[in-house]
Amino acid sequence: MISFTLTATVPAAYEATLERVRQLLGEAGFGVITEIDLAATLRAKLGVDIPQQVILGACMPQLAHRAIEADPRIATMLPCNVVVADEGEETRVEIFDPSAMTSFSTDAGVAEVAADARQRLSGMLEALTGKKKDDDAARA
Amino acid sequence: MISFTLTATVPAAYEATLERVRQLLGEAGFGVITEIDLAATLRAKLGVDIPQQVILGACMPQLAHRAIEADPRIATMLPCNVVVADEGEETRVEIFDPSAMTSFSTDAGVAEVAADARQRLSGMLEALTGKKKDDDAARA
Repeated sequence: MISFTLTATVPAAYEATLERVRQLLGEAGFGVITEIDLAATLRAKLGVDIPQQVILGACMPQLAHRAIEADPRIATMLPCNVVVADEGEETRVEIFDPSAMTSFSTDAGVAEVAADARQRLSGMLEALTGKKKDDDAARA
Repeated sequence: MISFTLTATVPAAYEATLERVRQLLGEAGFGVITEIDLAATLRAKLGVDIPQQVILGACMPQLAHRAIEADPRIATMLPCNVVVADEGEETRVEIFDPSAMTSFSTDAGVAEVAADARQRLSGMLEALTGKKKDDDAARA
């Protein structure tokens, strides 16, 4: 399975996690500029029931501006989606990994922005879970 | 340059093209469930001026549902972004190519949904420009 998301599952209720994610995104420099209640949308349009799930569109204007100046096509990958999904006793937070942009755009400016955004969002997940991830965890 | 968008530039004004894109997306089965005025956002937040540009979040609930049932991570790539950008005498329409999802998720269900969405959106661009694209153009 190819990884294209940053993800964490926390042992906390959905609503509380959603509020915490909003707060931590703000602290990481991101505004939430779109919000899709995916479960409500699918219920209304298709009559199907899926567990509660929202897609928050997170945007840091400085990074967005640098990215589209470097490669205007990157606008089609904005904002950065942060999914918060109810999994009963736990809540899953899954973020489109900004470094996936570099699979498509080889521009050096895009790579810089992606690395910056990725570091902020990884840090946000660490704050959410209280854990360091990846190589930091390996060194600990 | 790696292609990850479907794009067309039309010799028409921005506002008229934006209205036409909204209409054609509807005819192709997509609702516009988010809308970001990128130029206004960057002006308000950073004081910079870029040409008029919006990101329309296009969603076809049946396809979205099938995609997240096949691979829940795909929620981080929804909705499908359709950028409409003012280029003076022309207007550029640039869409995140759904087939790019298959660079990340190898699930067969995701591939089916991506192919369906891609066909609809390519058809929308053909209707917008009055031209067949890709191999259809080569065969003509």
